[in-house]
Amino acid sequence: MYRTHTCGELNLTQKGQSVKLSGWVQRVRRLGGMTFVDLRDRYGITQLVCGENASAEVKNITESLGREFVIQATGIVVERSNKNAKMATGNIEIQLDELKILHKSEVPPFTIEDESDGGDEIRMKYRYLDLRRNPLQKAMALRHRMAQEVRHYLDQINFIEIETPYLIKSTPEGARDFVVPSRMNQGEFYALPQSPQSFKQLLMVSGFDRYFQIVRCFRDEDLRADRQPEFTQIDCEMAFVEQEDVLNTFEGMAKHLFKVVKGVDIDYAFPRMTYAVAMERYGSDKPDIRFGMEIHDLGSLARGKDFKVVDEAEFVGGICAPNCGEYSRKQLDELTLWVQRPQVGAKGLIYAKWQSDGTIKSSVDKFYSQEDLEGWFKHLGGKKGDLLLVLTGARNKMLSALGDLRLEMGNRLDLRPKDVFAPMWVVDFPLFEWDEETKRFYAMHHPFTSPKLEDIHLFESDPGKVRANAYDFVVNGVEIGGGSIRIHDSELQRLMFKQLGFTEKEAENQFGFIINAFRYGAPPHGGIAFGFDRWCAIFGGSDSIRDYIAFPKNNSGRDLMADSPSSISELQLKELALKLNPNS
Amino acid sequence: MYRTHTCGELNLTQKGQSVKLSGWVQRVRRLGGMTFVDLRDRYGITQLVCGENASAEVKNITESLGREFVIQATGIVVERSNKNAKMATGNIEIQLDELKILHKSEVPPFTIEDESDGGDEIRMKYRYLDLRRNPLQKAMALRHRMAQEVRHYLDQINFIEIETPYLIKSTPEGARDFVVPSRMNQGEFYALPQSPQSFKQLLMVSGFDRYFQIVRCFRDEDLRADRQPEFTQIDCEMAFVEQEDVLNTFEGMAKHLFKVVKGVDIDYAFPRMTYAVAMERYGSDKPDIRFGMEIHDLGSLARGKDFKVVDEAEFVGGICAPNCGEYSRKQLDELTLWVQRPQVGAKGLIYAKWQSDGTIKSSVDKFYSQEDLEGWFKHLGGKKGDLLLVLTGARNKMLSALGDLRLEMGNRLDLRPKDVFAPMWVVDFPLFEWDEETKRFYAMHHPFTSPKLEDIHLFESDPGKVRANAYDFVVNGVEIGGGSIRIHDSELQRLMFKQLGFTEKEAENQFGFIINAFRYGAPPHGGIAFGFDRWCAIFGGSDSIRDYIAFPKNNSGRDLMADSPSSISELQLKELALKLNPNS
Repeated sequence: MYRTHTCGELNLTQKGQSVKLSGWVQRVRRLGGMTFVDLRDRYGITQLVCGENASAEVKNITESLGREFVIQATGIVVERSNKNAKMATGNIEIQLDELKILHKSEVPPFTIEDESDGGDEIRMKYRYLDLRRNPLQKAMALRHRMAQEVRHYLDQINFIEIETPYLIKSTPEGARDFVVPSRMNQGEFYALPQSPQSFKQLLMVSGFDRYFQIVRCFRDEDLRADRQPEFTQIDCEMAFVEQEDVLNTFEGMAKHLFKVVKGVDIDYAFPRMTYAVAMERYGSDKPDIRFGMEIHDLGSLARGKDFKVVDEAEFVGGICAPNCGEYSRKQLDELTLWVQRPQVGAKGLIYAKWQSDGTIKSSVDKFYSQEDLEGWFKHLGGKKGDLLLVLTGARNKMLSALGDLRLEMGNRLDLRPKDVFAPMWVVDFPLFEWDEETKRFYAMHHPFTSPKLEDIHLFESDPGKVRANAYDFVVNGVEIGGGSIRIHDSELQRLMFKQLGFTEKEAENQFGFIINAFRYGAPPHGGIAFGFDRWCAIFGGSDSIRDYIAFPKNNSGRDLMADSPSSISELQLKELALKLNPNS
Repeated sequence: MYRTHTCGELNLTQKGQSVKLSGWVQRVRRLGGMTFVDLRDRYGITQLVCGENASAEVKNITESLGREFVIQATGIVVERSNKNAKMATGNIEIQLDELKILHKSEVPPFTIEDESDGGDEIRMKYRYLDLRRNPLQKAMALRHRMAQEVRHYLDQINFIEIETPYLIKSTPEGARDFVVPSRMNQGEFYALPQSPQSFKQLLMVSGFDRYFQIVRCFRDEDLRADRQPEFTQIDCEMAFVEQEDVLNTFEGMAKHLFKVVKGVDIDYAFPRMTYAVAMERYGSDKPDIRFGMEIHDLGSLARGKDFKVVDEAEFVGGICAPNCGEYSRKQLDELTLWVQRPQVGAKGLIYAKWQSDGTIKSSVDKFYSQEDLEGWFKHLGGKKGDLLLVLTGARNKMLSALGDLRLEMGNRLDLRPKDVFAPMWVVDFPLFEWDEETKRFYAMHHPFTSPKLEDIHLFESDPGKVRANAYDFVVNGVEIGGGSIRIHDSELQRLMFKQLGFTEKEAENQFGFIINAFRYGAPPHGGIAFGFDRWCAIFGGSDSIRDYIAFPKNNSGRDLMADSPSSISELQLKELALKLNPNS
């Protein structure tokens, strides 16, 4: 037997007992003839002590220990003189009787501490060592707890977890599909699923009533900062439901997770905001409502003073940043540059500072009186000491820019603390999304999303105005989940495909088995999918999903540890009936 | 709201209540002016009745109903006159007030009944309809329950579920790997994992101590009757353990599953049998010990009677089939042909019947006296009325043939009931397996499996005799799990690679990141992986894993429903820098 206890469980209750522990050497300190070894495992750290009375053998072995050696220690639990209240095991230490090295370690390429001295690349390469660090151990434990609690909760309310295939059909438009060549069916390919969307709808047709799955999804797209080629979803679908049923069910699940995982008891209904209001007030379809600073239209107040920039703009809007009335010229110049960055995209920034002496100083003093500007402040709920930031330009673009600026000011003002959570639903998303490049409408969610019945009359006349029974779950400005009620009526589905520009043959080709399935009695159904990696990151207080994935890939889709992807043999290619065809 | 109750929950408690149900029309019966509709959902069946007092509208709609229509019914719960005790809802029926067709259905291509009239192919093609059938609904529910209970049990004892990647490194010897071409790293490929073996060992190096995962695995091999290109494992690994710890831990898990899923309380320790004994007595490394009929060596009794077939054979062995002493000539001829099939591989069959009149009649009366044959029967524990079946030939081949024959006789004698479970451990597997074709040893389990320390002296002199710390979990003659204690000592690992004929470079190439990881303090560790699909099938009393997989593929690896794999576009191939290269 390698151990009687773990390194996290001993305290004064075991005083006087002989115990055996195994683990890694966290550090060794020598102090006047005594040697102290911090022994670490997943459960904690226990201090071993090699005193003057220890045997020569134990002393010798203690001498030879290095960081990250794996050892087995036998000894007596004794009370510590200098207790460490910060450690669970801080009241005791183990007086060593026997010591055994189970496995030596070379010196690790970076320190295994809460804050490591290793850079990103080296920690990715030695991911198995990085994973020894406490923050990553905790991240994996959090992820495990989340998954367990999701399953437990959904099981209790009759959801059934069903595994859907990973080797699925590649669709003609599946540009983002990873494909898998088949050896048994040469020249043909499977695809890895971007989501189990079709399967979960089929499971509703099959009568499973309430389905979920914590499932891997794959997307072969150029990776942005916080994307991974494989990621995990909590995928859910319910039959015989309306939007209200879906929202209530998963609001329950989310509250359960907040409670058992974060200890946060949310005793109110999650706010629901329409897409239209979210865009208007927050310039975003995933508002961070931990703080106010809402966007307001200043058009009617600002126009008509011969200021061309304002008079000619489709939209004039602003936010009021509290207690920033004393921002310096330099700070304001910085902010101006910030809003002019291409990803924000404003032309310039109008500001007005309500200074402590009661005067208002602005970048547009030439056009507006003190009273005018005070009117703006009032309209935005501002007060003396605040700062008004105003953008002008195309409406949607400026709303989005103001939304970004709002978040930036929120960050600067520490209004976005990681341990405060503001969950919410955004509802009534548009059904269609116009694409400027291809000059056509696309399904904003996916082609099975049902429109609101009261908007169907707009289908041909004003498709952009048709709202969908589609909803997102948003926490702290991050979209964590999204879903919709699906179309279960064949006639409406045909209309939808037509609107999206599919010929009947194309629709058949791409969605054939779903369309067929719907011929045999599809129940009304709807669902939602949550980004599991992201939800873990939010709960862990991290901006990056990478810390919540045991073995992530880098921004080029490479696994630096295993050095993958890699070339394969000629023989393998031959068996797959493939040839490399480098693009010259 | 689509329903107030499900179709499985109403009984006399709700008598007189107005309820709303939704579901599928299972069948419609008309009986003297009344119409009875069986309404089905996942939870059960409820009888709707349209009586003479029903409204004209309800009557009309009832008239138009067909099988598998999706409907919504509102009505009053009334007590049934002809109660059906077999149904949970058999005491009540719903007197229809309102009826609404939510979705019509075409006539399904086969009947949605416990026993369907559809063949395999058509049911695969319309899998979403096959899944509506009760046996498959139950199979999925069983699978869900199993997975939940595995997770619950392992969570309770500190196991942590960690998701490992599906896009991993393709290894040069990975002939059975499915590969995934990378668009971002053209000319390079990921592989889909055959198992997360490397990752789980890395997680032990990372200090996660107790890991598990219910995880999909992929193997691109020619599919035999009951194999699938993707299958699911319960994958587990523990640090600081010896074989005994692993067996005890997972025996606990198995007992929990037997209890909560099957209601079978196993209050004894699972029998443990060495590989050597299993082969000798059962001719199999996965014995079905629900019945005896063990194999015995008859060599010393049978030899020396001038019967060449026996005298010249390396091995003479037999089994005794109880109560088959009156087998006819025709039955025995059949059995002879059965053992001569290539997959069994015996040359011929010697039999001896101890008939009810006390005489023994055999196929070898020319060589053996009644007393000789009675001696054989006694040696095998046989009695009057039994049948002796004897094979001669090469030892291992005949043991295996006798093992097959034993199972066949067990089937014929109904000694293998699906609702009796005989779990066991097979231990002490050989470390190496000799391959006649390539004339070299291979690792029987995998190259990280640790040998028994007491056998290490045989490593070079007699490698075939070296036993491993490897074990299988077997239920009813089916291998459900297997694992081993791993090598964590670099020196021993080097020796192992050498024995397997790897050069250092080859080992580095194939197992590089694992070997590297072991430089930084690997704990002693070991684990096990269970075939989840197979375990579900065993618990469900089925011979086929296919019924326990929601969307399985056929024997050619095809998904008949989605018609996958399929061709992809020239553009996609180009983006992947690949060209088709048909083998002519």
